[in-house]
Amino acid sequence: MGEKSTLVLLRHGQSTWNAENLFTGWVDVPLSVQGEDEARRGGELLAETGMLPDVVHTSLLRRAISTANIALDVAERHWIDVRRDWRLNERHYGALQGKNKKQTLEEYGEEQFMLWRRSYDTPPPPIEKGSEFSQDADVRYAGLGEEMPLTECLADVVKRLLPYWESAIVPDLRAGKTVLVAAHGNSLRALVKHLDGISDADIAGLNIPTGIPLRYDLDADLAPLNPGGTYLDPDAAAEAAAAVASQGR
Amino acid sequence: MGEKSTLVLLRHGQSTWNAENLFTGWVDVPLSVQGEDEARRGGELLAETGMLPDVVHTSLLRRAISTANIALDVAERHWIDVRRDWRLNERHYGALQGKNKKQTLEEYGEEQFMLWRRSYDTPPPPIEKGSEFSQDADVRYAGLGEEMPLTECLADVVKRLLPYWESAIVPDLRAGKTVLVAAHGNSLRALVKHLDGISDADIAGLNIPTGIPLRYDLDADLAPLNPGGTYLDPDAAAEAAAAVASQGR
Repeated sequence: MGEKSTLVLLRHGQSTWNAENLFTGWVDVPLSVQGEDEARRGGELLAETGMLPDVVHTSLLRRAISTANIALDVAERHWIDVRRDWRLNERHYGALQGKNKKQTLEEYGEEQFMLWRRSYDTPPPPIEKGSEFSQDADVRYAGLGEEMPLTECLADVVKRLLPYWESAIVPDLRAGKTVLVAAHGNSLRALVKHLDGISDADIAGLNIPTGIPLRYDLDADLAPLNPGGTYLDPDAAAEAAAAVASQGR
Repeated sequence: MGEKSTLVLLRHGQSTWNAENLFTGWVDVPLSVQGEDEARRGGELLAETGMLPDVVHTSLLRRAISTANIALDVAERHWIDVRRDWRLNERHYGALQGKNKKQTLEEYGEEQFMLWRRSYDTPPPPIEKGSEFSQDADVRYAGLGEEMPLTECLADVVKRLLPYWESAIVPDLRAGKTVLVAAHGNSLRALVKHLDGISDADIAGLNIPTGIPLRYDLDADLAPLNPGGTYLDPDAAAEAAAAVASQGR
């Protein structure tokens, strides 16, 4: 208590569906070969900068779990405590899951496309239960009941993420642990929005690159001493963020 | 409570040092390529038999952690809860860690060699602190204090394993979970000795093959309904056990 603490955010490396430019959401696709390389590089950065986690929190999705496994193995921290929760999952992309981003852009037009991708509070249409890319029958979500989403906007992600932040991640930080969160573009944007106090409008412009650990030094009130965080490889982060912003073009 | 429960034991696949016939103990070597294949096969057996864990307990050693990661990924159970503890580690092999088994046999003779390998209560000489294959400076064991071993016999392993069995694994079983324990030849022999009530003398003859899940159906008192357990691939288990018994020859 009253101590500084360290939080490290790591967005999973490229997945096979990132590579194919498909909306993924809760569909549990694996890392691509490039994504595995990115995870390895993430682990090297943790080791090189001495940013060694004591505990890792992951989503329930393979691409975040594999990224954590690979990065921690490289950083010689494979043996640390592990916690997993659906509240760290990627945003549920509703009926867009499994659809090609470029085709969706052409079919619905720029305005609708950007609204679904970047507006704070407009979710895509809900996914049909029992359809090919729906998770309603997935046993890992059997306990969710009414909380099981059929689509989500970023506001929904913030709402379901924060209870886990408060109940699971904050206690680890308060215990003085260096905490790694291995998760997704939108669940990490939701967390960064909360940490940095970013407005509903401004969060649209924030992209988090894959595979590059982002360090936050937090004060006793868990406010960032380095607002915006510090990428462990700033040059690579700037390049990658530009590439993310141009997705779907 | 009052329910049956299911425990699945999985000995890690071949490590690089198993392949080189070296005493490993607490030295944190990776799986060999064959070991990764064994882990994959272990995961296929879990999936094929519908033996799907709800939680996994591992040691702090990479070969057990990687085996669990690979097997659970193949079985589509990568998302389950994870617990790790040093009490599931392999037996500490003392001053023999890093030594070739065949050379040790030739140097010390059959009687001394078998005493160290298979007697219940004769540990090898203690490892020298700060020596090449010692773990006394390893941060993952920093909290152990006086409990940090410098060598162990199987009786020592039983003694340090049982508190974890009682405090961490039994509660998961009593909660009705299917529990996977991914660990090592001697920590699993210690657990099987306890479960099946095997005598100090008879445990010497028990070998557990690598990579083949061993299922125990436990009654409400956690006594095995299938004493000795049931290998998910019995033919492969019989072949592999024979191979283990001839190690060092």
